[in-house]
Amino acid sequence: MVYVSRKEHFNAAHKLYNPAWSKEKNAEVFGPCANENWHGHNFDLIVTVKGMPDPETGFVIDLKKLSTLIRKQVIERLDHKNLNLDVDFMQGKLASCETLVVEIWKILQPEIKTISKYGVLHAIRLYETPRNYVEYFGE
Amino acid sequence: MVYVSRKEHFNAAHKLYNPAWSKEKNAEVFGPCANENWHGHNFDLIVTVKGMPDPETGFVIDLKKLSTLIRKQVIERLDHKNLNLDVDFMQGKLASCETLVVEIWKILQPEIKTISKYGVLHAIRLYETPRNYVEYFGE
Amino acid sequence: MVYVSRKEHFNAAHKLYNPAWSKEKNAEVFGPCANENWHGHNFDLIVTVKGMPDPETGFVIDLKKLSTLIRKQVIERLDHKNLNLDVDFMQGKLASCETLVVEIWKILQPEIKTISKYGVLHAIRLYETPRNYVEYFGE
Amino acid sequence: MVYVSRKEHFNAAHKLYNPAWSKEKNAEVFGPCANENWHGHNFDLIVTVKGMPDPETGFVIDLKKLSTLIRKQVIERLDHKNLNLDVDFMQGKLASCETLVVEIWKILQPEIKTISKYGVLHAIRLYETPRNYVEYFGE
Amino acid sequence: MVYVSRKEHFNAAHKLYNPAWSKEKNAEVFGPCANENWHGHNFDLIVTVKGMPDPETGFVIDLKKLSTLIRKQVIERLDHKNLNLDVDFMQGKLASCETLVVEIWKILQPEIKTISKYGVLHAIRLYETPRNYVEYFGE
Amino acid sequence: MVYVSRKEHFNAAHKLYNPAWSKEKNAEVFGPCANENWHGHNFDLIVTVKGMPDPETGFVIDLKKLSTLIRKQVIERLDHKNLNLDVDFMQGKLASCETLVVEIWKILQPEIKTISKYGVLHAIRLYETPRNYVEYFGE
Repeated sequence: MVYVSRKEHFNAAHKLYNPAWSKEKNAEVFGPCANENWHGHNFDLIVTVKGMPDPETGFVIDLKKLSTLIRKQVIERLDHKNLNLDVDFMQGKLASCETLVVEIWKILQPEIKTISKYGVLHAIRLYETPRNYVEYFGE
Repeated sequence: MVYVSRKEHFNAAHKLYNPAWSKEKNAEVFGPCANENWHGHNFDLIVTVKGMPDPETGFVIDLKKLSTLIRKQVIERLDHKNLNLDVDFMQGKLASCETLVVEIWKILQPEIKTISKYGVLHAIRLYETPRNYVEYFGE
Repeated sequence: MVYVSRKEHFNAAHKLYNPAWSKEKNAEVFGPCANENWHGHNFDLIVTVKGMPDPETGFVIDLKKLSTLIRKQVIERLDHKNLNLDVDFMQGKLASCETLVVEIWKILQPEIKTISKYGVLHAIRLYETPRNYVEYFGE
Repeated sequence: MVYVSRKEHFNAAHKLYNPAWSKEKNAEVFGPCANENWHGHNFDLIVTVKGMPDPETGFVIDLKKLSTLIRKQVIERLDHKNLNLDVDFMQGKLASCETLVVEIWKILQPEIKTISKYGVLHAIRLYETPRNYVEYFGE
Repeated sequence: MVYVSRKEHFNAAHKLYNPAWSKEKNAEVFGPCANENWHGHNFDLIVTVKGMPDPETGFVIDLKKLSTLIRKQVIERLDHKNLNLDVDFMQGKLASCETLVVEIWKILQPEIKTISKYGVLHAIRLYETPRNYVEYFGE
Repeated sequence: MVYVSRKEHFNAAHKLYNPAWSKEKNAEVFGPCANENWHGHNFDLIVTVKGMPDPETGFVIDLKKLSTLIRKQVIERLDHKNLNLDVDFMQGKLASCETLVVEIWKILQPEIKTISKYGVLHAIRLYETPRNYVEYFGE
C-alpha cells in the first residue's frame, strides 16, 4: 500500500459570515475575517490517494490524470472565484476551510475510481495560508 | 553600506478592473482576474533599507521598529481588506501589484528616517503568489 | 472529523548535555551539539487539533484563539530563551526536541477544551531545522 | 512514542518505461516521462523513525547517525545516477517513485536497529517535485 | 520603473561533459556531474521584466502573456528533455546553467516587445537546486 | 557576465549586547535579543560570485569548490558556535547580522581567486530567520 499525493493551488475571495447572526455578532466571532467587502487567499490543495501500485505501470494512480481530475472537478470551480457567491457546492454553507475540505472530498472520492483501478481517496489537505491548514480523511 | 530586509504578509481581496472600460473589455483584458465578485491572495511584502550600521548597535535599522512601522502604516490598512473598496491610498487607482508597490514606497519612504538615522528605503518587493512578484526602487 | 493545524515559531539557544556524564562523554555522544557555549535554532511548531466542525461557525477550533493560546502558554516561555537555563518546564530534563514535544503536549492538551467544545489535541510537530523534526501524538 | 524525521536529497535521471511494451504504448501511457533520452529531478527523501526516547540521551535515534546511514545506504547509490541504468536495487523494476519508496524501505528497515535500540522505521516519504510525492509505511 | 517577475519550472536530464576532453579529465573536473548515464534536476526559472506600468491596465506586462511566452519559447523545449541531446539551442554547448541562462535571455529578449509596449527584459534567474542558482542581466 | 550563487547554512547562538552599556540599556535597546543566557538561529548564507564563464567548463566558478571554500573558511567557524564567545573574527564586535556579512565578505573576497580565474565576489546575503535578512556588496 503506497500513498501518492498531488498539490494544486487556487486563489479565491471569501468571508466568514453566519447569515443567521447580526452583523455585530459576526464581527465579534469572526473578527476581520467577517469583513463584508471580503478578503482572500492563495490556497494550496493536496490530494492523497492510496493503493497497490499497478504492476504494469508502477503507478498507484497516474499523477497527470489525477492533476487533470482535480483541476476539472475542483480548481476550475474555485480559482479566481468568491467562495460565498460563485461556488455551487458551497451554497448555503459557511465558507470555512473545514467546510471546503469535506465538500472537496465528496466531489473527488467517487471520481478516483474512474481514473485508477488500484487507488482510493485517502486525504484532502487544504492550506489557507502557510501557517493555517485543515485535513479530512473521509470520516 | 549594508542592506537589511524584513518580510511581512497580509491577505486581501481585489479585482483587476478599469472603470473606463465595458465589462466585456475588462473580461477580455484581465480574464478571471476581472471577476466582479472578487478573488484574493496571501501577499508577502519585503521592505529593504540600506545604510551604514550604527556603531553602537550594529544595526542599519532596528528590525523590530521597522516591523512595527510596516504593520502600522501598511499592513493594518491592507490586511483582510478589499484593495479596491477599503484602502484609502488605492482609491481611484487600478488595484494591480505595480500600483501597490509604488504607493507602499510613498508611504514608507518618509517614515524610515523617523526610526533610523542611518538607513534609507531601498526597495519594496511584493509577492502576489509564490510565482508572481513585483519590485520598486523609487525611480 | 476534521484536523486543523496552526504553525507558530520561536528562536532559542540550547545544548545537548547529560549532567550525569563527563564533559568528554557528552562531546563524544552529542558532538558539536554539546558545545558548552550553546548553539541555537529557529524552531517551527505545528499544533493539530481534531474534531467535528461547530455548525454555527464552521470551525473545529477558532485558529485565532488557538494561536493566542499557543503563544501565551508555549511561545512566550521559549522564544529568545535558553532551553536549558530559562524554561521552567524543561528544568532537570535533556533539552532535546523529543523532550520538548512531550512537554508542549502536556501544557496544551488540557487547555484546548478551554477554547473549543469540539476539538481535542491530536499532534505536536516541532522542526528544529528544515531537515530535522519530531512529532508526538500523546501516547 | 515519539516520531523523528530526517530529510535528505539527491538528484537523478530516469524515464518511465515498461520494456514489455512498444515504444508507442510507452509514449501513450507515460507521455513525456517516457522520453528515451531521459529527464530528471531533485528528489527530497524524508525518513521517519518512531520509538521511546532513550532516557540517557533524550533521543529516539541519533539524527547524525540516521543521516549517515541514509547517505551511505541510499543517497550514495542514487545521487547523480540514472535510476534505470545505474542502481543495483532498481534493476528489472519500473523506475517510478512508488517502486523507489518500497525499495528504500527494504534497505533501511533492517539497518535502523544497528544504530538505535529504541527506534523502528515508520515511514519513507519521497518528493519527486514540490507538487508530487509518495509515502510508504511498510505494509 | 517597476520590475515584474514570473517563475516557471521544468524537469530535465543533463551531464557536464566537454567532448574535447578524455573521459578521465571530464570525471576529474566535473565529478559525479559527468556521469555518462546522466542525472537531472527540477529547474526553477524566474524571468524579470522592467518598465513603466501601462496607465490603462496598471501592468508593466501581462503576467499571463509572459507565462504563455516563457512556456512556448523555453519550457516546451526544455521540460522532460535531455539538455545535451534534445535541445536545439544547446547543441555544441556545455550544458551548464551559465550557458542556459544566456541562451534563454537570447530567446526571450526580442520576444518581450511582442507582448508589452512598456517592458524590457531585465534578468533571467535559474535555480538548478534550491541551493545553486545563476543569473544573467544581458551584459 | 553571469552571477552564480551558492546557499549554505549554520546554527549558532548569540545575543545582541553592547558591553559599553548597562544591562538595563541593553535590555531597553535590544529587547529579548539581549537575553544574557543567549538565543539562537538557523542561519542561511548565500554567496554570489560574478564573472565570465570559463569556455572550457561553462563555469564562472566550480560550485563544489565554492561550497568547500565557504564551509572551510566560514561555516566551520560558525556552525554550532556562540557568535559572541567562540568566533575569532567576531571578537570585540557586536554580534549582529550586519557585522557578520561584512566579516564574511572580508574572509571570502581574497579567497575566491584561489579557486576561480574568472569570478569575483559580488554579494553576501545572510538570513537570520525566514523574515529577516541582510546583504553586503563590498562597499
